[in-house]
Amino acid sequence: MVEHRWSLSTLVFSVAFIIVVSYSAQSLALKHSSRFLGKFAATGTHFEPPQFLYETRYFQQRLDHFSFSELPTFPQRYLISTDHWVGPQRLGPIFLYCGNEGDIEWFAQNTGFVWEIAPQFGAMVVFPEHRYYGESIPFGSAKEAYKDATTLSYLTAEQALADFSVLITDLKQNFSAKDCPVVLFGGSYGGMLAAWMRLKYPHIAVGALASSAPILQFEDIVPPETFYDIVSNNFKRESSTCFNYIKQSWDEITSTGQTYNGLERLTKTFNLCQKLKSTVDLYDWLESAYSYLAMVNYPYPSDFLMTLPGHPIREVCKKIDGVPAGTNILERIYEGVNVYYNYTGKEKCFELDDDPHGMSGWDWQACTEMVMPMSSNQDSSMFPPYEYNYTSFQEECLNDYGVKPRPKWITTEFGGHDIHATLKKFGSNIIFSNGLLDPWSGGSVLQNISESVVSLVTEEGAHHIDLRPSTQNDPYWLVEQRETEIKLIEGWISDYHQKNKAIFDM
Amino acid sequence: MVEHRWSLSTLVFSVAFIIVVSYSAQSLALKHSSRFLGKFAATGTHFEPPQFLYETRYFQQRLDHFSFSELPTFPQRYLISTDHWVGPQRLGPIFLYCGNEGDIEWFAQNTGFVWEIAPQFGAMVVFPEHRYYGESIPFGSAKEAYKDATTLSYLTAEQALADFSVLITDLKQNFSAKDCPVVLFGGSYGGMLAAWMRLKYPHIAVGALASSAPILQFEDIVPPETFYDIVSNNFKRESSTCFNYIKQSWDEITSTGQTYNGLERLTKTFNLCQKLKSTVDLYDWLESAYSYLAMVNYPYPSDFLMTLPGHPIREVCKKIDGVPAGTNILERIYEGVNVYYNYTGKEKCFELDDDPHGMSGWDWQACTEMVMPMSSNQDSSMFPPYEYNYTSFQEECLNDYGVKPRPKWITTEFGGHDIHATLKKFGSNIIFSNGLLDPWSGGSVLQNISESVVSLVTEEGAHHIDLRPSTQNDPYWLVEQRETEIKLIEGWISDYHQKNKAIFDM
Repeated sequence: MVEHRWSLSTLVFSVAFIIVVSYSAQSLALKHSSRFLGKFAATGTHFEPPQFLYETRYFQQRLDHFSFSELPTFPQRYLISTDHWVGPQRLGPIFLYCGNEGDIEWFAQNTGFVWEIAPQFGAMVVFPEHRYYGESIPFGSAKEAYKDATTLSYLTAEQALADFSVLITDLKQNFSAKDCPVVLFGGSYGGMLAAWMRLKYPHIAVGALASSAPILQFEDIVPPETFYDIVSNNFKRESSTCFNYIKQSWDEITSTGQTYNGLERLTKTFNLCQKLKSTVDLYDWLESAYSYLAMVNYPYPSDFLMTLPGHPIREVCKKIDGVPAGTNILERIYEGVNVYYNYTGKEKCFELDDDPHGMSGWDWQACTEMVMPMSSNQDSSMFPPYEYNYTSFQEECLNDYGVKPRPKWITTEFGGHDIHATLKKFGSNIIFSNGLLDPWSGGSVLQNISESVVSLVTEEGAHHIDLRPSTQNDPYWLVEQRETEIKLIEGWISDYHQKNKAIFDM
Repeated sequence: MVEHRWSLSTLVFSVAFIIVVSYSAQSLALKHSSRFLGKFAATGTHFEPPQFLYETRYFQQRLDHFSFSELPTFPQRYLISTDHWVGPQRLGPIFLYCGNEGDIEWFAQNTGFVWEIAPQFGAMVVFPEHRYYGESIPFGSAKEAYKDATTLSYLTAEQALADFSVLITDLKQNFSAKDCPVVLFGGSYGGMLAAWMRLKYPHIAVGALASSAPILQFEDIVPPETFYDIVSNNFKRESSTCFNYIKQSWDEITSTGQTYNGLERLTKTFNLCQKLKSTVDLYDWLESAYSYLAMVNYPYPSDFLMTLPGHPIREVCKKIDGVPAGTNILERIYEGVNVYYNYTGKEKCFELDDDPHGMSGWDWQACTEMVMPMSSNQDSSMFPPYEYNYTSFQEECLNDYGVKPRPKWITTEFGGHDIHATLKKFGSNIIFSNGLLDPWSGGSVLQNISESVVSLVTEEGAHHIDLRPSTQNDPYWLVEQRETEIKLIEGWISDYHQKNKAIFDM
């Protein structure tokens, strides 16, 4: 079972944030490319051309903001639109999306909310890319930047926040917009960055909408089983038989794999393009599908990671439950994941991730700062049971990346423990929005902290659904949620104007 | 006058913070030792043995908290006393003094307030040393650490704050004191660190007493003339003739220096041990005396930088004004500074700083992050007129240390512009205490920002007098100020207990 343990802890990295996928176009050029991510890159190409218009610009950034080492600068890409901005005289706000671990154009396309509300706010829109992703690569090329622990060492959240702060300060100066209020947006890891940036740089931004931001998924702040329990509950609530079939399937896979010709049979059952090398790879493939399904369990058809129907888990379970009685459990499972991996019906066979240990930006971040302990509970989870073990995690990071994780650093730098007590009378103007179907919601802030550090929870929401472009099919709770967010942001801005006026009049 | 410009801008560094002096014991071992600072180190030895009892310990710190570069760790010294701590069960508070640019033992001796109030709070006391000062030296030796811009590059305020945060997190764990509230203290640059740490690490400390912390002395937030105007006003309020004599003395020095044998005559007039090489050195020596006098213009005899009488500027001006009519202006000046440099009467002659460009930790910080523009106004200042010029400042830093300053970094990282608007509804529990005689008060926060981010101003106070050990001669306003501070700190702690209880009961 040692092999299997690795499987789950890899998954923890891989699913860490769905958005990691967008990096994959880049990752093809890396030392270790990852097919698992590559799959999502492919879906990225399904997208319609961007609906939102912007200019692409570049800003030279320091590699280490917190030392004076002589290091090469790197070009940070950012997308910018001033089309609807009412300008500095009218103190037109600046909407800043905190780019996360992927190509910024992909985030821009998938964060319709910001673009859609910009006109009514008369806001400038800026989407800076996160360092080491997309085109914002230090050392001249992704190959060099991702070469080893030394070149990767400046890929940290603190440096990214400093990038945003330096960039926006420079932009404000160039636009003579010193007094224009900045509002932060971010989803997933980008939501964490948005919340942290409001806390660390209150002089730069007046508020933050942090959607699906699991800032509490560190150390022992939330139980390590949270993530997989929520994924599992997504399935259980659709069908307990579906949940049970999945839960039983792992042993079935293992025992089949151990039989003569078992790997061939699994290869056939799951319609894999290449012969399965190990059942671990199949575990990975299935675990990924279930986890991502929970994240994008949207109530309408979507095309974020994969082309999927609305309520995709319902559809998966319909297939798993719906095949004729007496059908082999693995065939049921195959019918289910086929909804996820091949809803369009275009796939002739499936390629598994052939290098699950491949280095990607997020893998590095997960092995350094973003140490998020995750376990799978024997009873409540439909995944194979797994107990998080920091020692073996550290060993893997040392082996794979030559780096020792700092598991307590994020809570030291950004906090997290006792966040309600800490922020009750400190900080202001943060929205933590979460959908309870999203497995990352368990690591986020689900209760109001103060009058202006608030939590918006939707029972039927999935991963940062509020930031997605609006659709004809948006349910009323989603429309309402976005209206609340708009009202809160309006409040921050008018409060800012009042305070500025009061100070000015003093 | 080019030479002279350098003189004043050097002064800006040198007087940047009086506490720089405590580094001097160390600096003797450095590539460039500084006699100017050395003088203060000597006074350090006048002190009685420490009145406060503590243990000295060391903690291994990362050199760069914000990257994963493989760098050697260094031992951070810290002084600790648990004598009065009531322990974790009773949530005994932890008083953390933010060590500034010097030997931490010197600060511990001169921060009696923290030691004196610890028993009534049942508090643990911790004085961590600032990296690159005292014994907390990276790379094995001061010689190596101060070798060049590369080895010095990790000497930044952000790294120092991270040091404090990592240290206190570790200490709390070792003492099972996770829930014990931490209160920050700091004076001068240490006060800036205390305020910034409360803002950046609210999860680590419940409040900060930031005494004489000029967090607004950056860019154009306050007028660059502030510092020298306040020094000058210290003299003017004692005696306008004294002010005028000093104001006239610079031309007298210059013209004397230009005459035949003029430097010899100045050497004799000012009782210098070595022949004066340039009038610039004499300018430096006098400007330093006046600036430091303003900082330590305490109402009682003190022994902080030099052994001095109470109201030392009054005494200096008495001498300057009091010599017989017709006395040469330079002889008057000499009689005045003699009070500062030789109150004990033990000095046979005076050694000027023989290496005013010597590299010290604070000089490095002033040439990198701590870029504090300062000018001397032709009319209001008694110092030679000088207009701050960033271009030449940058050139000097490049020449001297091979480093380019980042003049906008501090305001980007920590804010400062529009601080009242920014912090009105953000942050809590900070006291900015200032005495208006202190030339650094002009760059500090002199008005309340919110209910709990408050300003305590004393008209007759000088540089962080509130943090000094209490004396029999403390005026009533100082006693009152400290009582107010104690009440505010008590409020933070009881508020913390209540919030914790409320969360716990939830």
